[in-house]
Amino acid sequence: MLNVQLLLTGNELMSGDIVDTNSVFIARELKNLGVELTRKVTVGDNMQLLTEQMEQLSKDADILIINGGLGPTVDDMTAQALSETTKQSLAIHPTALEQVKAWCVKRSYRLTGPNLKQALLPTGCDIVHNPIGSAPGFSINHNSCQIICTPGVPVELKAMLREEILPNIAEQLPEELQTVTQKLKVFGIGESGLQKMVNDSYPNWPEEIELGFRATMPLLEVKLTSRSHTSTTLRDEWYSKIKGLLGQHIVSENGDSIAATVVKLLKQNGKTITTAESCTGGMIAAQLTGVAGCSDVFEAGFVTYSNRMKEKLVNVNAQTLEQFGAVSEQVVKEMVSGALAVSAADYAVSVSGVAGPDGGTEDKPVGTVWLAWANKQQVFTKKLYLPTHRIHFQNFIANTGLDLIRRLILGYHDEPRYFVERQFNSKT
Amino acid sequence: MLNVQLLLTGNELMSGDIVDTNSVFIARELKNLGVELTRKVTVGDNMQLLTEQMEQLSKDADILIINGGLGPTVDDMTAQALSETTKQSLAIHPTALEQVKAWCVKRSYRLTGPNLKQALLPTGCDIVHNPIGSAPGFSINHNSCQIICTPGVPVELKAMLREEILPNIAEQLPEELQTVTQKLKVFGIGESGLQKMVNDSYPNWPEEIELGFRATMPLLEVKLTSRSHTSTTLRDEWYSKIKGLLGQHIVSENGDSIAATVVKLLKQNGKTITTAESCTGGMIAAQLTGVAGCSDVFEAGFVTYSNRMKEKLVNVNAQTLEQFGAVSEQVVKEMVSGALAVSAADYAVSVSGVAGPDGGTEDKPVGTVWLAWANKQQVFTKKLYLPTHRIHFQNFIANTGLDLIRRLILGYHDEPRYFVERQFNSKT
Repeated sequence: MLNVQLLLTGNELMSGDIVDTNSVFIARELKNLGVELTRKVTVGDNMQLLTEQMEQLSKDADILIINGGLGPTVDDMTAQALSETTKQSLAIHPTALEQVKAWCVKRSYRLTGPNLKQALLPTGCDIVHNPIGSAPGFSINHNSCQIICTPGVPVELKAMLREEILPNIAEQLPEELQTVTQKLKVFGIGESGLQKMVNDSYPNWPEEIELGFRATMPLLEVKLTSRSHTSTTLRDEWYSKIKGLLGQHIVSENGDSIAATVVKLLKQNGKTITTAESCTGGMIAAQLTGVAGCSDVFEAGFVTYSNRMKEKLVNVNAQTLEQFGAVSEQVVKEMVSGALAVSAADYAVSVSGVAGPDGGTEDKPVGTVWLAWANKQQVFTKKLYLPTHRIHFQNFIANTGLDLIRRLILGYHDEPRYFVERQFNSKT
Repeated sequence: MLNVQLLLTGNELMSGDIVDTNSVFIARELKNLGVELTRKVTVGDNMQLLTEQMEQLSKDADILIINGGLGPTVDDMTAQALSETTKQSLAIHPTALEQVKAWCVKRSYRLTGPNLKQALLPTGCDIVHNPIGSAPGFSINHNSCQIICTPGVPVELKAMLREEILPNIAEQLPEELQTVTQKLKVFGIGESGLQKMVNDSYPNWPEEIELGFRATMPLLEVKLTSRSHTSTTLRDEWYSKIKGLLGQHIVSENGDSIAATVVKLLKQNGKTITTAESCTGGMIAAQLTGVAGCSDVFEAGFVTYSNRMKEKLVNVNAQTLEQFGAVSEQVVKEMVSGALAVSAADYAVSVSGVAGPDGGTEDKPVGTVWLAWANKQQVFTKKLYLPTHRIHFQNFIANTGLDLIRRLILGYHDEPRYFVERQFNSKT
């Protein structure tokens, strides 16, 4: 087993000013190769702590990835700390100098002292090309450990990792450790619910195929990971079984969100959509318009927060509002029909609910919501109950609305699990 | 100086499945006390690594906070690892047992083996009360270091930290190290721009007052931190100076977002607002309705993505659209006036722009946007240029629209800095 460890540097990581996502990215990419991180250590820009950790971790690890401290300023001290640790004096590295020069030329910058510093590296190191920024990466061996230094800027780290470092690590892996990962995005099934479904349906799930989950709210990413020597037949068999189990809950196999999937489906069918939102307040529209190229399928959305505007903009009857209240099946039905009529769209979704924290009643407590979704032929409705924080409620319900449209376009008829799990149980 | 270090445990932290925000919270809270974290180490649920790190870090630190591994399952091994490290055998701790029992009673759960395990702690430890969850925290001395074990569930950690651990650490601090922090949220000034303003206006900024920033996109949090023995007069003098410098860019002193500030201002004045959005696609409406209680001030929003719907919903002239194009001063003016008229609101904001990645022209490249904002008396307009990713563009522009309304309500007349920094420079 390859022992890979991580040393992160930077005062901003120690002060709580930024959230470390670099190590998450590194860990996830390594995991896709079948390699697990053993340890992460984070220290500020402090020479003594840096050299101490470099020495200690390099004694223990096969590969030590150092992230951060390659910039041009005085608090960027990775090269110097590594020079002290390895007892290799600092010198201008010709390849690094070329890269820094090329970077300056491309941007019409003059080469300055601080940039020159980025080429001043421990003697004997190898350069790792930075396809984006000015700071070259580099690697050096010490204590029988390969130490690889990477930039802290996330986009530079990602490019360098994908283009240079990961392929290099993959080569060092014995073939039996290399892995293949297949991913799916699903909506409406939680991690534990899904695990139970798998346990119930496939008590003999094969050891060769690792089932993993990652919450990417409100979607769940489902991953099947297997060693590259696992037979393709076995891998495909279980991928197809998990797909069968997840069924109509599968939103995408390419990482697309529900909104992106809906926009793509509408485009394929040459259809358009509109929205009439009360408690989600424009969030469904904003998710659709967050998808590039949505103008082909989305012309208009209505945010009708007050009763008066439900009447005026999407033609809800004053009497319906008075008789049944804004959070009712009748009102979301009229909202969805009105939105279809006014916009002349092919599909529509409407929502009215009690997002909270105030405004709940005994009949309609906070978390109660009615949804309607329709095409030009039919209108469907459903009442759900999701008593949670306002923003979480709005986000989940907005995605539920989009998911119901996805199911309608695809002609799906199974009940989604959230109809059961989020069922409104009358208190009377 | 108090040397505080952090040991984080959990396989989910090593696999890239979750982003570590616990350490960010701990670091920030410690910094508010004037204490800086020296080192963070993260390892998976591995007994050997855990005991090795506990021994090593406790030799170096005055206080070692351990986070995670207090749960009821077999992969929660903090207590056992600490028992091995300190050579203190595990025993049921009576106070811990009481807490676990009380927790079960409150939830009508039966006390089970796994719960009992949570009271099985190294002999001689002290209990740290967990006000929320079932896992008691505990602390023990080893290698002249106070080791404090905390739960990994963020809400439990936060409660325990605020109620028990931080006050305890504060007590150990010599008074001259304790600090006071004053915070402001600003919109439209970046970190480096602000630092330059400060350097220019106050070259003799006093050493006793530390100026810090934290990016909370799209707002910037500005912090003044000083030792508690710093004179209140000096502290107030510089807080007032920084407020003077930031001026009308200050959104809130209580952490409120722009949307929350706008909703509050409208409520105070008994006024209402509406929105007419093209390129932001409902995001302004969604931000407003994300604020609890917004129904008092927001009745309706219009998402008019197509030209046809700009005509139909907010009465833009077909001729105006044809003559000037959708992304034009004339169109946003008619949008904002139309939205005011249809909704009968007191304030309105409208936006039309090219969010990209496609749809740009030479005259109106991706990133071009027109905004209009108005009350019943006056309409204002501005063209800005922000060539960036679609989602970042939409988020920044939605907040700009809200900020312009904030300024209008408050009767502010200074030009915001983003008018200059985001100015559209015609290419002709």
